[in-house]
Amino acid sequence: MSYTTLKYDVSEHILTLTLNRPDQLNSFTVIMANELVDAFGRASEDDEVRAIVVTGAGRAFCAGMDLTAPGNVFGLDESQQPSVEDMHSRLNDPAIFDGVRDTGGRVTLAIYDCKKPVIGAINGAAVGIGATMTLAMDIRLVSEKARIGFVFGKIGVVPEACSSWFLPRIVGIQQALEWVYSGDILTAEQVLAGRLVRSVHTADDLLPAAYELARKFSQNKSPVAVAFARQMMYRNAAQPHPIEAHRIDSLAMFYTSLEDGKEGVQSFLEKRDPQYTSRASKMPAIYPWWK
Amino acid sequence: MSYTTLKYDVSEHILTLTLNRPDQLNSFTVIMANELVDAFGRASEDDEVRAIVVTGAGRAFCAGMDLTAPGNVFGLDESQQPSVEDMHSRLNDPAIFDGVRDTGGRVTLAIYDCKKPVIGAINGAAVGIGATMTLAMDIRLVSEKARIGFVFGKIGVVPEACSSWFLPRIVGIQQALEWVYSGDILTAEQVLAGRLVRSVHTADDLLPAAYELARKFSQNKSPVAVAFARQMMYRNAAQPHPIEAHRIDSLAMFYTSLEDGKEGVQSFLEKRDPQYTSRASKMPAIYPWWK
Amino acid sequence: MSYTTLKYDVSEHILTLTLNRPDQLNSFTVIMANELVDAFGRASEDDEVRAIVVTGAGRAFCAGMDLTAPGNVFGLDESQQPSVEDMHSRLNDPAIFDGVRDTGGRVTLAIYDCKKPVIGAINGAAVGIGATMTLAMDIRLVSEKARIGFVFGKIGVVPEACSSWFLPRIVGIQQALEWVYSGDILTAEQVLAGRLVRSVHTADDLLPAAYELARKFSQNKSPVAVAFARQMMYRNAAQPHPIEAHRIDSLAMFYTSLEDGKEGVQSFLEKRDPQYTSRASKMPAIYPWWK
Repeated sequence: MSYTTLKYDVSEHILTLTLNRPDQLNSFTVIMANELVDAFGRASEDDEVRAIVVTGAGRAFCAGMDLTAPGNVFGLDESQQPSVEDMHSRLNDPAIFDGVRDTGGRVTLAIYDCKKPVIGAINGAAVGIGATMTLAMDIRLVSEKARIGFVFGKIGVVPEACSSWFLPRIVGIQQALEWVYSGDILTAEQVLAGRLVRSVHTADDLLPAAYELARKFSQNKSPVAVAFARQMMYRNAAQPHPIEAHRIDSLAMFYTSLEDGKEGVQSFLEKRDPQYTSRASKMPAIYPWWK
Repeated sequence: MSYTTLKYDVSEHILTLTLNRPDQLNSFTVIMANELVDAFGRASEDDEVRAIVVTGAGRAFCAGMDLTAPGNVFGLDESQQPSVEDMHSRLNDPAIFDGVRDTGGRVTLAIYDCKKPVIGAINGAAVGIGATMTLAMDIRLVSEKARIGFVFGKIGVVPEACSSWFLPRIVGIQQALEWVYSGDILTAEQVLAGRLVRSVHTADDLLPAAYELARKFSQNKSPVAVAFARQMMYRNAAQPHPIEAHRIDSLAMFYTSLEDGKEGVQSFLEKRDPQYTSRASKMPAIYPWWK
Repeated sequence: MSYTTLKYDVSEHILTLTLNRPDQLNSFTVIMANELVDAFGRASEDDEVRAIVVTGAGRAFCAGMDLTAPGNVFGLDESQQPSVEDMHSRLNDPAIFDGVRDTGGRVTLAIYDCKKPVIGAINGAAVGIGATMTLAMDIRLVSEKARIGFVFGKIGVVPEACSSWFLPRIVGIQQALEWVYSGDILTAEQVLAGRLVRSVHTADDLLPAAYELARKFSQNKSPVAVAFARQMMYRNAAQPHPIEAHRIDSLAMFYTSLEDGKEGVQSFLEKRDPQYTSRASKMPAIYPWWK
């Protein structure tokens, strides 16, 4: 599959995924949503990819939903009202999927399911879905020029893309509510102080810093162990009791110890780099354990 | 209903709720609990109210439970022991409700259910239930003179008012445990460093800063979208998987797009202030989705 | 029971638990795991113990799993593969317990279940299980000389000891993921900035600071109220709705009010130190409420 709204470039096991509608400030369309879902699913299974950096072409990261493009608003009218029950039982029914399911949420759920570390390199404006899509990324770095806004309240709608699940986990409930209620456009300094982003960089340093992290997360790391770790961190922490983590820890440790863990310990004892052979596309039978 | 322990003043769509027993340092009584539950329920349904500021009359915010007032201790003795099972199945049975249910918790649950942003303007001492009631508020601002104490451990009892649910969400588990174990009276600087409060103000600046936030949260904002956002942020983040947020996001976005969202987008494109017509007292049929 | 890998010293109601294999940098073995599980269970029920300080003998805290000791790797081979279902239904079956259950998780679950405040005084290197075991402790203090590493990814295995449950609760998901992905060895300054630890101390000040906290958490405090508070803070916050906290709050407040709470209020009104008589070994009938 080739993309019309994205660039998908793999180099040295790092995928750079570039939102690529620079003349429209990379504003979000249904096509971009579908391409992002495809790209994260593809990268998740592509053993050449061991870490992902997401950035925007030109001066913006993503200026939000393209309000002028056809097909970005819901296709249903009020007479076809779905209900909470419909959304639970018929989530993948085409009538619901195409007409009502939030496109931003389809993207963040694809990021959530990904087996590879995801780093957001926010080079400019990230507004609306441009801001909320980054919440499902593991680490966010921003340029000094970045401006981030959870602006939904300003246009009479609600925060989306599962941001109500992700944002309080990253910045705490108090900061999350202030940003959502206000809809303010935030500077790089503000989002750093609020712990939304890991670090602030000059425009020139942003991508190099993102790649440095991506290399650290992928070089001499076991792809299977990384995939387990990512899903364990998000899923186990959301369980009501640590015993759920213990069950998965034990199984994941057992299986990784039988494969890359042997080489890991051996290389450590021999003070040399490990040569891991596992592949994220071939996870042990217990993955995904939540199915 | 008129209140004997509170002032309920609405101006420019902002409700100021003042704990009003200044000669008793606004200490908490069963009457105050009942009046607070009533006031938050009333404000939740009152379309004239779009944001709420809570503060204390005189020099204290709330000095804790009034240990001298009748009716503030439990009415049951040990021979009438309820059990965990009783508390689950008979929570609203008058014998349980009146005799055992924590009065502070009835207040924080009323705040939790409220459709409007709630800002705590902590003007002075906030101790015991005076501290824990603020945890269910969305944003906390303090005067330099504020002193906050989760002092339950000092008098041989446990943290209440659902504070074990709220406090770790706001400040993290490590900070929460230290404050609860120690029972220390904390300064404004300490609670700012611990991220319990958003900001510290001079005594004179406290209410103006609270009102500035309240105006930002209410002016040119859709009341229905704000009510959805508040409940989504608290409830979705506590679910084990973001798919639950996605289900609600999708429905809430669908419904708000059909009403205030149309005006929101239109006014944005026309670079003018929006004129929203939705009312929080008339939520779409999917609200409350958790019932 | 006497221990071969630990020192268990009680003085002034404070247990000092010292990892005591200094010549091996207190590296972790199955024997140490079993002794730690025993020691936390014993301290939990020992009314002489009201707070716990954990530290390491010599220059390290715990340098991780002893990779040279027999019995530290899993006893099963792949032909005896357990499954997710096995781990749920047969968790305590000896074949699973001895062969597959993560030893670090057995330790952190024992800490999690403890009725006493637990303070980690991290005096030096804390790596692998040496780092993750501290996550189940309530408060972490470090020496300037401490070095902390969640190094699992470097040896091809996954984070364990329920760290995927604890770490995001302490430092947030973004910081947790960076540390786990990188496997970096972190300085005292880095873990303070990341909010993993409460405070940094000179080597000489570390234990005095830990004991000062331990005294604050235990002197003039009700052992039953403290035990309730600890379990309420961890368990209630992980529930999807504050009503669960309310149910437990109400019961725990009711029972503690009938015993140490009476003395607590009386001593407060009389401006004297309380004389509490409750014992953590004799909890009210509602404890443990989660069984």
